[in-house]
Amino acid sequence: METVARAIDPALVARFAAIVGDRYALTDQAEIGPYLTERRGLWHGATPLVLRPGSVEEVSRIMRLASETGTPIVPQSGNTGLVGAQVPDASGRQVVLSLSRLNRIREIDVQSNTATVEAGVILQTLQEAADAADRLFPLSLAAQGSCQIGGNLSSNAGGTGVLAYGNARELCLGVEVVLPTGEVFDDLRKLKKDNTGYDLKNLFVGAEGTLGVITAAVMKLFPKPKGREVAFVGLGSPEAALTLFLAATGRAGSALTAFELIARRPYDFTLRHVPGVVRPLAQDWPWYVLMEISSGGSAEDARGLMEDTLAAMLEDGTAGDAVIAVSLSQRDAFWNFREVLPETQKKEGASIKHDISVPVAAIPTFIERGEAAVRSVSPGARVVCFGHMGDGNLHYNISRPVDGDDEAFLGLYKPMNRAVHDVVRSLGGSISAEHGIGQLKRDELIATAPPMAIELMRRVKAAFDPAGIMNPGKVI
Amino acid sequence: METVARAIDPALVARFAAIVGDRYALTDQAEIGPYLTERRGLWHGATPLVLRPGSVEEVSRIMRLASETGTPIVPQSGNTGLVGAQVPDASGRQVVLSLSRLNRIREIDVQSNTATVEAGVILQTLQEAADAADRLFPLSLAAQGSCQIGGNLSSNAGGTGVLAYGNARELCLGVEVVLPTGEVFDDLRKLKKDNTGYDLKNLFVGAEGTLGVITAAVMKLFPKPKGREVAFVGLGSPEAALTLFLAATGRAGSALTAFELIARRPYDFTLRHVPGVVRPLAQDWPWYVLMEISSGGSAEDARGLMEDTLAAMLEDGTAGDAVIAVSLSQRDAFWNFREVLPETQKKEGASIKHDISVPVAAIPTFIERGEAAVRSVSPGARVVCFGHMGDGNLHYNISRPVDGDDEAFLGLYKPMNRAVHDVVRSLGGSISAEHGIGQLKRDELIATAPPMAIELMRRVKAAFDPAGIMNPGKVI
Repeated sequence: METVARAIDPALVARFAAIVGDRYALTDQAEIGPYLTERRGLWHGATPLVLRPGSVEEVSRIMRLASETGTPIVPQSGNTGLVGAQVPDASGRQVVLSLSRLNRIREIDVQSNTATVEAGVILQTLQEAADAADRLFPLSLAAQGSCQIGGNLSSNAGGTGVLAYGNARELCLGVEVVLPTGEVFDDLRKLKKDNTGYDLKNLFVGAEGTLGVITAAVMKLFPKPKGREVAFVGLGSPEAALTLFLAATGRAGSALTAFELIARRPYDFTLRHVPGVVRPLAQDWPWYVLMEISSGGSAEDARGLMEDTLAAMLEDGTAGDAVIAVSLSQRDAFWNFREVLPETQKKEGASIKHDISVPVAAIPTFIERGEAAVRSVSPGARVVCFGHMGDGNLHYNISRPVDGDDEAFLGLYKPMNRAVHDVVRSLGGSISAEHGIGQLKRDELIATAPPMAIELMRRVKAAFDPAGIMNPGKVI
Repeated sequence: METVARAIDPALVARFAAIVGDRYALTDQAEIGPYLTERRGLWHGATPLVLRPGSVEEVSRIMRLASETGTPIVPQSGNTGLVGAQVPDASGRQVVLSLSRLNRIREIDVQSNTATVEAGVILQTLQEAADAADRLFPLSLAAQGSCQIGGNLSSNAGGTGVLAYGNARELCLGVEVVLPTGEVFDDLRKLKKDNTGYDLKNLFVGAEGTLGVITAAVMKLFPKPKGREVAFVGLGSPEAALTLFLAATGRAGSALTAFELIARRPYDFTLRHVPGVVRPLAQDWPWYVLMEISSGGSAEDARGLMEDTLAAMLEDGTAGDAVIAVSLSQRDAFWNFREVLPETQKKEGASIKHDISVPVAAIPTFIERGEAAVRSVSPGARVVCFGHMGDGNLHYNISRPVDGDDEAFLGLYKPMNRAVHDVVRSLGGSISAEHGIGQLKRDELIATAPPMAIELMRRVKAAFDPAGIMNPGKVI
């Protein structure tokens, strides 16, 4: 602790603290603790200083001082990221910059259908504010009660609403960014069309805080759907799920608002471990799909689309069984069944996780080859496959063998990753569909991405942050 | 001519020509002519050499030689751009690189809903190929019979399908780019989700050929709508059109596939100048909207949404009159009425055009202030206002006074631009919503954009094209 406290010159700590005031410059390690670890406990950073600015002006002054003194800055918002991008390294020389006090919703414009929000606004707060204005903000993910918009944008967050509404990038119309020098790039536009030069906004979105600090953004809002129907479907194979997906897309188009694949194993885990959970379908199936159709015109439209789609798929044998939720509580129960999957897996011992995407058409092939790849590393390991199939994105997690040892299994982390990711790459897929790179996948990205991609990313990094003070050691 | 023919060392011309073969290295000024002017006749470039490579490998070799010799390259595909980005300067020292022979559709994947196409594929050819595969490629614009995908991407083309499906950027999943050095950046992915580092793709899209040469791309396809309804609506004011837009969005959501505003003046121009054109509405109105609703489930869905929306708007007085096309030919006639507007304006003498966007909510304010701004420059000038209101994008064109002189009016080009663009900027809008910057708006962009935006764009340019050989003099 003593070492960490002295890793940055106390005089410099005092200069940073003076910008935000003592109350918002945390130097007590007990207070700093929560900023240094994340929920999975994979990374433990160290820092003598967490800064909690209350205005863009203060962020700007912090970055100016950081720039003058070559002090590395690690931006952090809700600290829910899964790849360690928001955690400082162990040197104690990096200052954590928390955006959580920048938590104003600056404006909701119901005519332009936009919300202008600061980086520290909690996702659920924005969802609720949109709802109160009779609008939908469709970004939705497990951490929504604590994750913040700045982090959502910096990680280009996905979740369950991407199929119809797009990921964080596609929901963002404009950004306000404090650059490493402290200069402010104000691009808070509400425009659907703007062809005035290079697309700078999309460089900052998804950059995980390595190019600048996003302090605010203009996000898209949507009319609230009038009808929402959710069905649970049992199927014989991933091929059948693909057929169902194509049929549902063909009928419902962008009214198909969710298409989640669940394999039998995670389905069984939930039945086994969640007290009081209701079995969605009477009979067991090798594969399940949770499917949602929403409609703007009337509640009946969604119902009709859902019924017609499922009737056709049951008749031609694509689907084995299907049930449409008949009440709000059943609808919530179906969604809850999907949402508890990551938690229930923990009850089955250690697991090695993957956040992959492939072209939608390649999902069945990936599932077949993935299983073989996993077996080649650990014959008894249990594939726990579920995810946003409509986006080509699976959370392809591997639980240890039933009688296996947690630690021994986690020792297979690297070969397991490699085996699964090799299959992903052979199908033109991505090793990080929605969680980002951070610290977790940085080495692998550099080692396996096309060298030209890495070279271009390095040039961008050097052009925007020549001194390398923005979240060093992350992404590239 | 002699000067131009010698502006590049003939030995170097021969080296370039050897890459593509004599047949595809145009040096005869008669053959070169069509590559040097564009349809509005605003720019006339000069070059001793047009190269028409037949493969990505040839493009790569051309760029390598250009890089070694510091030869500026101007990429060109369909030569339909409206801002001069595809035309070389008058020095005769820039080589035109035509992508039109790279015209293969490499793949249509109906399961992943993607088309992998080369830069020289004509937009309409891709639309037809998608249609033959029972899919929709929704990018649609006036030049679709001759514009090419490479140019569509480099200019981030818009058009009438943006409201529901997005512009060229949003339709693009991956790109293949030859860099200024000749190296190939292969990022031809079919992924809906990919968070592996910085978003390089979106830098090349919309860069107007100043960062690299897009040689191929993966584009999104969509299910074909089963129902499509088109209505012509008469209204009293832009405010009423905004109310109609919000109501239609609320009911139809993304099934609202077009919302085009047309002022009385361009409406009358078309009635006056197009032989045999049918008057869409019996009575005259100050404003009109052409509105399209599409549906995936059944033809009836679109009909129901359209009827319900219009009934509500007629009942509460928002809309004055409305007619829904009852046949395919009437539907085409309504669309044709919209599409001939730019042509009919020509019959009214010289005009000064603007391609602007503002937040949707600001459209009525823009129309009011725009009229005053135009009058301050030329009291008798006639505002011809129409465009993609649902995207906040208007083609705000100004025709000369009825009895005015063409040349005298065109002399007001700069003050008129400035007056209109000042209003745009005061409303947080864009001076180029969909046509780009090119040569036409480069000086204005540099003079009026936030200095930080220009600075960052220059850094990107320097990082990707340090020698400045990619389409110099365009964008920034």
